Amino acid sequence: MTVKVITVGEKILGANEEKAKVNKKRLDKFGILTINIMSSPGAGKTSLILSTIKHLREKTRIAVIEGDVASSIDAEKVNALGIPVVQINTAGGCHLDANMVESGLNSLPLEDTDLLFIENVGNLICPNNYALGEDIKLMIASLPEGDDKPYKYPAMFADTDVVLLNKTDLEPYLDFNIDAFKKVVTGLNPDVIIFPVSCKTGAGLEVWFSWLESALKGKKSK
Amino acid sequence: MTVKVITVGEKILGANEEKAKVNKKRLDKFGILTINIMSSPGAGKTSLILSTIKHLREKTRIAVIEGDVASSIDAEKVNALGIPVVQINTAGGCHLDANMVESGLNSLPLEDTDLLFIENVGNLICPNNYALGEDIKLMIASLPEGDDKPYKYPAMFADTDVVLLNKTDLEPYLDFNIDAFKKVVTGLNPDVIIFPVSCKTGAGLEVWFSWLESALKGKKSK
Repeated sequence: MTVKVITVGEKILGANEEKAKVNKKRLDKFGILTINIMSSPGAGKTSLILSTIKHLREKTRIAVIEGDVASSIDAEKVNALGIPVVQINTAGGCHLDANMVESGLNSLPLEDTDLLFIENVGNLICPNNYALGEDIKLMIASLPEGDDKPYKYPAMFADTDVVLLNKTDLEPYLDFNIDAFKKVVTGLNPDVIIFPVSCKTGAGLEVWFSWLESALKGKKSK
Repeated sequence: MTVKVITVGEKILGANEEKAKVNKKRLDKFGILTINIMSSPGAGKTSLILSTIKHLREKTRIAVIEGDVASSIDAEKVNALGIPVVQINTAGGCHLDANMVESGLNSLPLEDTDLLFIENVGNLICPNNYALGEDIKLMIASLPEGDDKPYKYPAMFADTDVVLLNKTDLEPYLDFNIDAFKKVVTGLNPDVIIFPVSCKTGAGLEVWFSWLESALKGKKSK
């Protein structure tokens, strides 16, 4: 009998990739556009989800998976809007993984869903390493965090499809150079789409909604 | 030959605890007060360190270990003030550990240091699980992150010695209830000390400086 050697990191990541593909296939079968939302704690993931639900719910069937280390505060906010939602508590884990998302999918009405938001755990590092089965990776950066974050967390900015730059309403009170930020992010990730928005005032959200509606149409026509 | 079973999590954490004790003993030998600073990305760890250096440098010999996933932006800011500093890049790792700090200590003039700041990687989850050899765990929360963070990241708030609540200058523009925040944090952690401050305007920092000077005296008298 030979001793099997397991390199933990690769094994876990490889198994996660496989499970993410299974999730993706399942979601594709129902034509569900799936967006994995990542950010620092408090950058505005839930605010973006709530604003988007309010805008799109008349024409789009939305569901949400909420990921948090603890609590169900965010899921309760989504539930209050009458949207199907499941809360995943990671019990100390600093990111969602594809297995957790699979459990979430088992509790959602996939046949009645066009758009699925997966709100990841608030963390700018590890969520980026775990595919969940999403179509789109979206990260939120927020002005109070400072315009140097792309230098410090380059992998997250380099890999994402969309950057929502939130809390632009605070610009007058902060030293945040939006043009410099965009330049650095585009340098790391030439194909990225950047939306400066304020989930609080609604500024800039129309552009995000339009883009999302196009993406929904693109998914349905596949 | 029997196959050795290694439970990775426990093994790593156990080994880390041992190394942290070695670091602590080494730092105690020189009478160095060591503070492990943790927070979300962009909450103000470096700003607090820079403000404190400017205030205390005439009477206190300070050194800094900067932890980041990538870049040396923060270390350069400290270096510009002429303070001994070493940058640790974790290459994707989401927290510092005691081994990394040991490497940092090897590059610092410990015999000429009274106060050591260790700036952890920006993350509200994993840094809390890794002792580094510090005397004091300090976490920074900031108003733009929202007053619900203690519910979502309870372990970090429950285990820290000090919470610095930064960016109070933005209070007029945010829906952050400072009293409610204090109540929740104290519920999780009855012995915690909370300092509301603005590293930008300097508001509240005098109280932090006084507390820190007392802690420095306490360490020297041991």
